Amino acid sequence: MKRYQALADTMAAEIRAGRLPVGTRLPSVRHLTTQYGVGQSTVFRAYYLLEEWGLIRARERSGYYVAPGAGLPAPAGTPPSPLAEPAPIDVSSLVFSVLDAVKRPDVVPLGSAFPSPKLFPLARLSKSLAHATRMLDPWSTVVDMPPGNEPLRRQLALRYIGMGIAQPVEELIVTNGAMEALTLCLMAVTRPGDVVAIESPCFYAALQAVEHLGLRAVEIPVDPREGLDLDVLAEALDKHPVRACWFMTNFQNPTGVTLSIDKKRALVELLAKHEVPLIEDDVYGELHFAQDRPPPAKAFDTKGLVMHCASLSKTLAPGYRLGWVAAGRFADAIRRLKLMTSISTSIPIQAGIADYLQHGGFDKHLRKLRGALLAQRGAMETAIARWLPAEIAFARPDGGYFLWLELPGHVDAMQLHRQALARGINVTPGPIFSARHAFGNCVRINFGHPWSTQTESAMKTLGELLRAPS
Amino acid sequence: MKRYQALADTMAAEIRAGRLPVGTRLPSVRHLTTQYGVGQSTVFRAYYLLEEWGLIRARERSGYYVAPGAGLPAPAGTPPSPLAEPAPIDVSSLVFSVLDAVKRPDVVPLGSAFPSPKLFPLARLSKSLAHATRMLDPWSTVVDMPPGNEPLRRQLALRYIGMGIAQPVEELIVTNGAMEALTLCLMAVTRPGDVVAIESPCFYAALQAVEHLGLRAVEIPVDPREGLDLDVLAEALDKHPVRACWFMTNFQNPTGVTLSIDKKRALVELLAKHEVPLIEDDVYGELHFAQDRPPPAKAFDTKGLVMHCASLSKTLAPGYRLGWVAAGRFADAIRRLKLMTSISTSIPIQAGIADYLQHGGFDKHLRKLRGALLAQRGAMETAIARWLPAEIAFARPDGGYFLWLELPGHVDAMQLHRQALARGINVTPGPIFSARHAFGNCVRINFGHPWSTQTESAMKTLGELLRAPS
Repeated sequence: MKRYQALADTMAAEIRAGRLPVGTRLPSVRHLTTQYGVGQSTVFRAYYLLEEWGLIRARERSGYYVAPGAGLPAPAGTPPSPLAEPAPIDVSSLVFSVLDAVKRPDVVPLGSAFPSPKLFPLARLSKSLAHATRMLDPWSTVVDMPPGNEPLRRQLALRYIGMGIAQPVEELIVTNGAMEALTLCLMAVTRPGDVVAIESPCFYAALQAVEHLGLRAVEIPVDPREGLDLDVLAEALDKHPVRACWFMTNFQNPTGVTLSIDKKRALVELLAKHEVPLIEDDVYGELHFAQDRPPPAKAFDTKGLVMHCASLSKTLAPGYRLGWVAAGRFADAIRRLKLMTSISTSIPIQAGIADYLQHGGFDKHLRKLRGALLAQRGAMETAIARWLPAEIAFARPDGGYFLWLELPGHVDAMQLHRQALARGINVTPGPIFSARHAFGNCVRINFGHPWSTQTESAMKTLGELLRAPS
Repeated sequence: MKRYQALADTMAAEIRAGRLPVGTRLPSVRHLTTQYGVGQSTVFRAYYLLEEWGLIRARERSGYYVAPGAGLPAPAGTPPSPLAEPAPIDVSSLVFSVLDAVKRPDVVPLGSAFPSPKLFPLARLSKSLAHATRMLDPWSTVVDMPPGNEPLRRQLALRYIGMGIAQPVEELIVTNGAMEALTLCLMAVTRPGDVVAIESPCFYAALQAVEHLGLRAVEIPVDPREGLDLDVLAEALDKHPVRACWFMTNFQNPTGVTLSIDKKRALVELLAKHEVPLIEDDVYGELHFAQDRPPPAKAFDTKGLVMHCASLSKTLAPGYRLGWVAAGRFADAIRRLKLMTSISTSIPIQAGIADYLQHGGFDKHLRKLRGALLAQRGAMETAIARWLPAEIAFARPDGGYFLWLELPGHVDAMQLHRQALARGINVTPGPIFSARHAFGNCVRINFGHPWSTQTESAMKTLGELLRAPS
């Protein structure tokens, strides 16, 4: 057992025995390093473990406190198993401490999952929303229930034609953002206990969805330069009764990697051979820096097995919560699930977005947005070269707004996250993108915000933290 | 085995053997009554069973067809077990054939779950939405993420004060309608396989939520005059490891019954004794016909165990999808679940509704709406007395817009539903409100639409159908 685990166990015993009642402030890190003769990072890791176990909670800039309900029985102490077997997923409160920091206006949002809201045509959108709502037929509250507002779905189908996909309007279901689309797809094709294939690293919400639905996940490695490992996937499909795959094909979160056209075609063929549905998360596809939009895997689907999920949250209308799925043969099942679990996507929002897509100049806005993100990528790369240690590795993404940094092996991304947050900077630590909290030396950096002296200074601080002896 | 079951089995065997390929139109009811020497209702019930099993599909006014995928293995043929034991739930496609008919503009919406959209101040709402969206701070797309827009939550807290409840704003989480609030509550306090207590009859979406989350349900009888049977509930709590209750305390769907204040208090005390959380669905509470709003059970909660779920979908803004939960001790868990499963409720919608609640005259609108519903209840009662057979029983609800009709024992509500639909009238058959498809002689009638000659004539037709020899 490592030292930090031993320390965590000791403190857990104290808490469970009631010697540290709920609400008690825990000793400072400095105090514990002295008391136990251990390094700061050992104390931090022990605290993260206690936090994961639900025994303590951090209050930012104030310290750690014994959490409500900390008197519960101890969790099974076994370490996460190696990658081979499908496992039920237990995503800890880790994710939330990261997400909560995103809302703090005083924190530099390098850890945000969103681009700056200032990059979006919110005024033009509000005009469309006002216009469409003023014109709303009262009966649209019934008529626009799932599959959704028809003019909107026709506008979306037109955009598929732009990608070379003849997308039947009937198979398009409007959802509350892509998040709901993805969850509905997963619900439609699995039952609790089923095995699904996800990426590693992957979007953390996929981990949580898999957890909530009682599924087991087999993780397929994603290389930051090559993307999904199709050989491992093929092996997993042979070995396990995989009921669905949830993959991000373009500008993957967190690595930023895009599958080549050949690999997309091979992926679709492989899954078709096994009759396994693909839930394709393509929320970043429109944010390409090259001339053409990378096609989704859906473009190569001839059997209706690919459910292509996307939204306008990253490209047009953050906070509106407007997404959809092109659901192939699962369209009717998903429409019914949507009706049953969330009744409908907001009717005024659907009508407003339909109006914007028809009259608002979406493509012009997209060109501007892509230009801004590309410029910000450049500024971020310059800052990395200037401020961060040279041994940091990353692949340059051709779109989106994430950089996946592989830090030197000894760096603890969780510690870096905590230290950075204490200095008013949010970065997303690698372990939240993995069911097993792997990628302990990686962080995801967001370049979706217009460059500022604040960002520059945050990068400088990160460099200092990375160079400091831990 | 009953005759209709035998007939269904025979036909299922034909379909599974491939002798009736996918897409084949099934013989007419008339043809089968002759061929097998059975009554029409036997054929109908066999068809409903085949439909439930996913083997056939109805196309309205056209007949039944063999469904895609009908070649799958047979479901376990055991009939539903009696009421005693908690059971996993299998809600069939029954519900959807009823819901789908709601969207058809040519159908008289006595089976709708909504009041007429014309009863709502949609123009005034659109003004608030336009105003609030024009003023929207771009950062609100981050700041208004769960728990949600703060001015909105303050407005909601004020309404709780009006009910005599000091509701902390921090425990209010904004959701996509009450439906999401209810599901999040259920997710927060259960794990797959857990037992939950639900009503019988109950809102069908509760059945489906229980099914999707892999829970087992124990059904507690609801008397249309007295409400929930607390003795049976007490017995269930002693006998089963019930992890949560999902009850509708005011103007229950479908019966319309309201629990008395004494019973509400007793319910809260009983659950507190067992430390069992109550998920309280109170979406109709504001639609009271008496002077005062009936309090929710939440008013008697001293331990934070009651999660009070409500929305504006039935009282102000149908289709906006704005709901919330006053979540007591579960507030933080639910806020995190919301963030993880749906990111946020639409930001413009939150801001627009906050503006309306502050400036739009909600209480004045509510008084008008209640008056309209009360008048419509009167018209419906008159029509029932005039057109329907005298042996129909129902309790007069003190609010909401549903009547729960108990038809003579020999009436098959599913058949009535089908026959009425063929005549352009939608009524909601009792069996969709029960995991075991009980209440076969009950229907729910909606009086939420302004009375018209079309409604009057629909009631007359229902009377004819009920008097016709089956």
